[in-house]
Order: sequence, then structure tokens, then C-alpha cells
Amino acid sequence: MKKKIKKALVLLSGGLDSTVVLSICKDLGLKIYCVSFDYGQRHKIELEYAKWQSNFFKCISHKIFKIDSFGGSALTDDIEVPSNQNVKDIPKEIPVTYVPGRNIIFLSYAVGYAEFLDIDDIYIGVNAIDYSGYPDCREEFTKGFEKLANISTKKALEGKKFKINTPLINLSKRDIILIGMKNNVDFSKTSSCYNPQKNINCNVCDACLLRNKGFEEAKEYLKKPGVVNV
Amino acid sequence: MKKKIKKALVLLSGGLDSTVVLSICKDLGLKIYCVSFDYGQRHKIELEYAKWQSNFFKCISHKIFKIDSFGGSALTDDIEVPSNQNVKDIPKEIPVTYVPGRNIIFLSYAVGYAEFLDIDDIYIGVNAIDYSGYPDCREEFTKGFEKLANISTKKALEGKKFKINTPLINLSKRDIILIGMKNNVDFSKTSSCYNPQKNINCNVCDACLLRNKGFEEAKEYLKKPGVVNV
Repeated sequence: MKKKIKKALVLLSGGLDSTVVLSICKDLGLKIYCVSFDYGQRHKIELEYAKWQSNFFKCISHKIFKIDSFGGSALTDDIEVPSNQNVKDIPKEIPVTYVPGRNIIFLSYAVGYAEFLDIDDIYIGVNAIDYSGYPDCREEFTKGFEKLANISTKKALEGKKFKINTPLINLSKRDIILIGMKNNVDFSKTSSCYNPQKNINCNVCDACLLRNKGFEEAKEYLKKPGVVNV
Repeated sequence: MKKKIKKALVLLSGGLDSTVVLSICKDLGLKIYCVSFDYGQRHKIELEYAKWQSNFFKCISHKIFKIDSFGGSALTDDIEVPSNQNVKDIPKEIPVTYVPGRNIIFLSYAVGYAEFLDIDDIYIGVNAIDYSGYPDCREEFTKGFEKLANISTKKALEGKKFKINTPLINLSKRDIILIGMKNNVDFSKTSSCYNPQKNINCNVCDACLLRNKGFEEAKEYLKKPGVVNV
């Protein structure tokens, strides 16, 4: 008897992290359904990349939900995106690029849609190491959300529980990039910048700084004698 | 020194329960901000009533979020709405009118929007007595959601915690109606029916049966000697 191929719902922003998550799901041989969100973000180019990546990795479907934005963030409103010269200069507090309720809204859609498609496994590329300090990127949040989804949905109460998978949660940006390289991710078709001008990265926002540092460290790592990243 | 008037965000569907919640908030003297959701429901008339009620109760604002629906329910798709003759005939299992992820999506928007407006208190008219058996109408869900909101938002981490208020959770439909009567709710401007035809109630869906039974019981109660509902 053939083993049934498991399905996965991947939250794909078109950024580096979620694209690496997509590549991990492909590597696991899962049937992949992608969801993206158009929430009025200034870096809308990421949605184009999300489409490109979902095609490249031969996903079953790719749904873009349009979210009625209510503002309150530098990513959606006319608020300046903070810039710094170096990762170590990034302040420790939650930055103005934080979008009120973003991941809780995204995961709620994901759970509703996964219930509709009868998918148990939801994948999200949150990361609590090299990240911008958003409270809804921490494991405490994703674990809490999983618990909530499993008491509030018909599917879960019928015994088909959801699992919120966060394969990148404890990885450095360097290691995320190395996994992506191994999985043939075309990083030129991902976007991390919070404030791209004509689709050119600003190289001074938190996301650019973390991304650039990750690539530098990945290159250093691959230069080491004896290291082969395949 | 004048006491600062507290703000409340009310999830207002335009149905009987949420309108009574609105009247309770008014009775408490709160500054009220309403949110409603257009999720492709067949009973869209409720949104008109929501607008009417938010005007009647002189709310500060009323925001209708458009939700990109993904189907899977008799309330949004071409699936027949179940009909019965009597409340006692309503089957015990979760009905096909269940909308995957509905309240988790609604509350996520509410939390994000409340964070944007700097409101701590969110009010939702869920009820676990005379209801259709939806898993996301139970106290376990709203309590779990409150906990999640308080670990995943900037506002809560800065010490301004959210409270998800469910004043109707343990009330019978009769008692909800009696409170509404006391608070001058115009019930003719509320809609409960899952399947109205030209805005006329079907009187056979779960919601109609529960509503009609509630009104009958409220009338019986008011007939009792010595009862004055003011």
C-alpha cells in the first residue's frame, strides 16, 4: 500500500525565512499549499516573489488573502522605517515596524483555511534569534496559538489536531541561509527589506542588516576548510 | 479630577446577542468603538442593522472589516442551511453553518485594531447556553484567546493587558432578551436568521428557533405577577 503523502500549509511572505521553510517542506516531500497576505505593506514586491517561489517549488496552490489594514505600523503607514549602520546598533525594544496583531491574524486565516482544506500541518518561518524583536515571533506565541486552534475548531475537536511547525525558531540567520542554499533556494527571488525603493533594498533597515549579516556569516562558514554545504 | 471614561471595542454582528452586548456597554457608560465583519455571509442584512445600532447607541466609530472568505460553511457557500421545527430537534453535533476559524479571525482583528486604538476591553457576545454548538463560542476559547493576545502584542507586553469580556456567556436567550429590553434595544433592527429570504426570517434555522423560543420565554416571564422589567 502506498503511503499517503502528507499535506502542509505554508505561510509564505516571499521573504528569506518563509522561502527557506517552503524549501524544507519540499525536501520533506510534502504536498504544499501556500498562503500569503496582502496587508498594505510597503514592501509589496515580496508578494511577487512569493508567487515566483510557489511556482518554483511546484506547490499545489497559492492563495493570497487581502487583509483590510488598520495601520499603526511603519510597514503600512507613513511612519519612517528606522535605519541603522550595523546589527549591533538595532535598539532592543519592539520597533515601529511592528504591525499590531499581524501574526495572530495571519495564523487565524491559516487555521481557518487549513480546516477548509483538511490540512493538519501549518508551517511558519518565525525566528527568535536574528529577528526584529516582535512578540508574535516567539515560540510562546506559536505554541499558544496551536493550543487555541485545537480547542476552537471543529476539525480539532473531531480528533484531527493542528500542528504549528516552526522549523527556524532557534536557528541563526546564517544557518537558515545555509539550509536554503542546500535546498536550492534562489535568494535573489526573496525580499526582506522593509523599505525597498523601486525594489532595491535599502540596506539600513533591521531586516536588511540581519539578512546581510547572515549572508556574510554563511560565506565565511563555507570558506572553512572541509566544509561542503550540499 | 474627572474620572477617565473607559473605552470598549465591541464586536457587533448586528444580531441579537451582540446588540445586547452593545447596550450593556452603553449602560456601563463606556466609550464604544464597534467592529463588524463582511465575510461573504448570506445574511448580509445584519451589517445594515449593525450600522443602525451603532448609530442608535451613539458609538464613537464603526469599522466594517472585509474578510476574504475561503468558504466551507453553509453561511457562505451553496450548502443548504439545516431546518428544524423545534429547538429540541436541533442535532447535538457542530452544524454545517459552522464557519472554519471565524471567531479566531474576528478576535484577531479586534485585538489588532484595539491595539491600534489603545483599547484594553474587548466585548464579544458569545453564549454557551442557547447557541448553535460552535466550538469558538465557548469560554475556554475566549479565555485562551485573551491569554494569547496578552503574550503576543506590544501593548500587552508594555503592561496594558487586554480583557476579552463575554457578558452573555452563561445567560439563556430569555435573559439576554430581558436585558436588551431593559436597555431599550430595538430588536426589530437586529437579525439572527442564517438564511433570510428578502430579509424575512426563515423561522426554521437554528438561530431563528433559538431566538423565537427566547422571545416566547421572555414574554411568559414578563406576564408573571409582580415582574417589572425596567
